[in-house]
Amino acid sequence: MGPVSARLGQPTNRKPPFKFSAFTRVGFSDTDAQGIVYYGRYLPYFDLARVEYERHLGLLDLEIGEEEFVMRSSSVLYEAPARFDDLLEVFVRTKRIGRTSMANEYRAIRVADDVLMCTAEHVLVLVSLGERCAVPIGEAYRESVAAFEGADLELSGPAT
Amino acid sequence: MGPVSARLGQPTNRKPPFKFSAFTRVGFSDTDAQGIVYYGRYLPYFDLARVEYERHLGLLDLEIGEEEFVMRSSSVLYEAPARFDDLLEVFVRTKRIGRTSMANEYRAIRVADDVLMCTAEHVLVLVSLGERCAVPIGEAYRESVAAFEGADLELSGPAT
Amino acid sequence: MGPVSARLGQPTNRKPPFKFSAFTRVGFSDTDAQGIVYYGRYLPYFDLARVEYERHLGLLDLEIGEEEFVMRSSSVLYEAPARFDDLLEVFVRTKRIGRTSMANEYRAIRVADDVLMCTAEHVLVLVSLGERCAVPIGEAYRESVAAFEGADLELSGPAT
Amino acid sequence: MGPVSARLGQPTNRKPPFKFSAFTRVGFSDTDAQGIVYYGRYLPYFDLARVEYERHLGLLDLEIGEEEFVMRSSSVLYEAPARFDDLLEVFVRTKRIGRTSMANEYRAIRVADDVLMCTAEHVLVLVSLGERCAVPIGEAYRESVAAFEGADLELSGPAT
Repeated sequence: MGPVSARLGQPTNRKPPFKFSAFTRVGFSDTDAQGIVYYGRYLPYFDLARVEYERHLGLLDLEIGEEEFVMRSSSVLYEAPARFDDLLEVFVRTKRIGRTSMANEYRAIRVADDVLMCTAEHVLVLVSLGERCAVPIGEAYRESVAAFEGADLELSGPAT
Repeated sequence: MGPVSARLGQPTNRKPPFKFSAFTRVGFSDTDAQGIVYYGRYLPYFDLARVEYERHLGLLDLEIGEEEFVMRSSSVLYEAPARFDDLLEVFVRTKRIGRTSMANEYRAIRVADDVLMCTAEHVLVLVSLGERCAVPIGEAYRESVAAFEGADLELSGPAT
Repeated sequence: MGPVSARLGQPTNRKPPFKFSAFTRVGFSDTDAQGIVYYGRYLPYFDLARVEYERHLGLLDLEIGEEEFVMRSSSVLYEAPARFDDLLEVFVRTKRIGRTSMANEYRAIRVADDVLMCTAEHVLVLVSLGERCAVPIGEAYRESVAAFEGADLELSGPAT
Repeated sequence: MGPVSARLGQPTNRKPPFKFSAFTRVGFSDTDAQGIVYYGRYLPYFDLARVEYERHLGLLDLEIGEEEFVMRSSSVLYEAPARFDDLLEVFVRTKRIGRTSMANEYRAIRVADDVLMCTAEHVLVLVSLGERCAVPIGEAYRESVAAFEGADLELSGPAT
């Protein structure tokens, strides 16, 4: 029963253009002395949603190799504070894929009252492990994302 | 469907004397430059299992008030290293309840191969929020734990 | 000798318009399995620089009371990856003060080779602790910042 | 002036048998909703003290290679809670060196009032990077530690 209970991500149509979301709970170690979630602790929530998204699209194993995505920019807009034990639903989508980079968008809401906690956009660049210079994103990755995101995906974005 | 997918803890009889476990996945932010989970990052996994344990026993709300449990000691024994995206099952039990303190025991295994990652014991003391001095653990808390843990619970441990 | 060794922040004129910087070292727990600093772990470095900046301006105690600054937005641009034990110099400045919000700018460089690791901008809003609604930033705070930042500070920015 | 300001560790004779300590400040991200330092966040403080200790003894570079120390056990005893911006002095010593393992002891005090926050003992094992099996600690490492710790070091401890 383990794997079933542990499936935290799933397709969804509740918040278009998002098509996927994952659940996570605010742990005690995520809070700070203001009694709310420390602003930097939302980033692992976004990571978790992205991992489940990639697992669903069969992209998790594709990434392992001589190349890896590295963070180029991260922008978070905080709307309301989450607190200990809040159940959050984190929506994730690929907004744009360029030649060597992609932009991921996030939206975290509190399940209990559907209140928006924060939104975010991450730009990642695929780099070679050695010289860490930008390399083209493979067609398999690009096609899997395009098939899932459909018309909402910007394919002609400028490469970073 | 949210609440169902997000239920991470459940009773279990696979690793007695443990009677409860929770699932968690190793996030990328939990790893360090050795390529394995940073030794301090298992502590939030233990917290997560304990929170689900307390939720199952109806103790989560009981805690909120003028008193709170604070960590008195934490001992972790590391057996094997977990890695990014490993699914872990964290077993948790109350081993002993004294007058003002309790000892919780943990056991984290990797689901894929049932290999033991680490074991831990935490001693917590109930303190008043103001002066932070030890106060007796209430009967309701004690009885809920005793009913769930049964004969495996040491009730006559020395108070800290 | 403690306080002297522990003074991590100081005024500087090496990277105008920044006028203050603080030093920090990359700890092992800041790294991830890519062998570099996890992208979210730069945020505590920015916090550290800001705390030393506020200490230098006599603003640290001023904050404690019925109001507190909360994060409204955080944008980080990653230029190069820091690694374990890198000594970083984090430049910090107040870029703009509006009626209830302010924008802080950061720039982290590696001391060994003066290479830029990342830049960031945080917008914070002063809120009341109860209802968490925006309240005006006090004149004492505003004047201390204006005296230190001089002509580089935008005072007429739109309130958030 | 950078390197000087950033030197956080130094020999000391204030708390024998400790002979070395390092300073660190409690960052905001180290606190939790109890208003105190999260119990797991002392571990990076211990790491920091250990890194400065190894730097002082010329052991930091010695470690890099085909072998690395991994955590075998970590025990922390919490005496009093540290809070945001507390300046801590973390004493560190090698208590014992066996054939393939060593025990490090820590003691964190608050500088302002010399109050003990916590003590800890870590046992580390030197392992080969590939198979991760225990390998003997080199003579150079052992001799540097023995020269610094003197008679307080247990050399004949049982190998883990």
